[in-house]
Amino acid sequence: MKCSVYIATSADGYIATPDGGVDWLHSAGNQRADMGNEDMGFQAYIDSVDCMIMGRKCMEIIASMNLTPEQWPYGNMPIMVLSNTIKTPPENLIGKVEMYCGDINQLIGTLENDGYKSAYIDGGSTITSFINLQLINEMTITQAPILLGEGLPLFGKINQTVKLQDAQSRVFANDFTQVKYSVNYS
Amino acid sequence: MKCSVYIATSADGYIATPDGGVDWLHSAGNQRADMGNEDMGFQAYIDSVDCMIMGRKCMEIIASMNLTPEQWPYGNMPIMVLSNTIKTPPENLIGKVEMYCGDINQLIGTLENDGYKSAYIDGGSTITSFINLQLINEMTITQAPILLGEGLPLFGKINQTVKLQDAQSRVFANDFTQVKYSVNYS
Repeated sequence: MKCSVYIATSADGYIATPDGGVDWLHSAGNQRADMGNEDMGFQAYIDSVDCMIMGRKCMEIIASMNLTPEQWPYGNMPIMVLSNTIKTPPENLIGKVEMYCGDINQLIGTLENDGYKSAYIDGGSTITSFINLQLINEMTITQAPILLGEGLPLFGKINQTVKLQDAQSRVFANDFTQVKYSVNYS
Repeated sequence: MKCSVYIATSADGYIATPDGGVDWLHSAGNQRADMGNEDMGFQAYIDSVDCMIMGRKCMEIIASMNLTPEQWPYGNMPIMVLSNTIKTPPENLIGKVEMYCGDINQLIGTLENDGYKSAYIDGGSTITSFINLQLINEMTITQAPILLGEGLPLFGKINQTVKLQDAQSRVFANDFTQVKYSVNYS
């Protein structure tokens, strides 16, 4: 199964403030820029995946947003949440996500058997685990024009150097930038 | 004085391996790409600055390269090396760099009095110190297409969030990418 990443970081590589906050992401950049219908590739990315696997912290950030059905960005695709400790999702995510405790390769096998072909992998620890299992095939990283100074890093300890290739790069009117790579473990 | 940064990192934000190694920088990316005369903006950047301030570690990495006069990339501009511990440069850098121990704002004042207008600031700790003193005006960060997994980060602890603006972005045939920002401390 193809596993890919679409995530935003600060220019110093953090995905959240130390307490998990992501408000900076919405206030960063040139707010007066005319972005038109520019969504920095999000909807096209969502249309390219058919399931999602995220970490617990990532789920908790989404839960804290209290999204209305109209605001829910992930359509109807199944969302598996990795956690060894929590067995039930927060109340406002019941029916929207399913908790999973266990082996990641086994989860991928189950999803493949169910016919899924392309997974959106989200959350720093989860992405790092997937890279260490050589499962991530493609990464799109959007960089907000801000230095946070500290926070939760996108990448944790990766066990080997990993080559990236097929680089693409974009800049948006609001001063966000974006790079896209495919991942080569050979 | 304008203070700017031109530095390369891995895609996970490290400027060197844990032992200070930068060999990965020269082996990363598509080695078969036709780069022509593309130097990723280095010479134009060097031509835009008239002095350089770097940290001790940065100096030691340069010393370890044992560059010939033909390989020396910094022309004849004065290079100040910040160190509280070392008073004399390594033998192969004597006459090429000058050690400085003391207040950074005072150093900038002295350089300004001597007529210098644009400083190249190099080394992770030094860049972080300069950002915390609100001295960096512009940053060009070239990202090598590799995840190192661990290493010396470009940015250390920054004491406040810092806004970046005027984003530019480029991608090169060898899969390196580059972003350029101006820095807004207001």
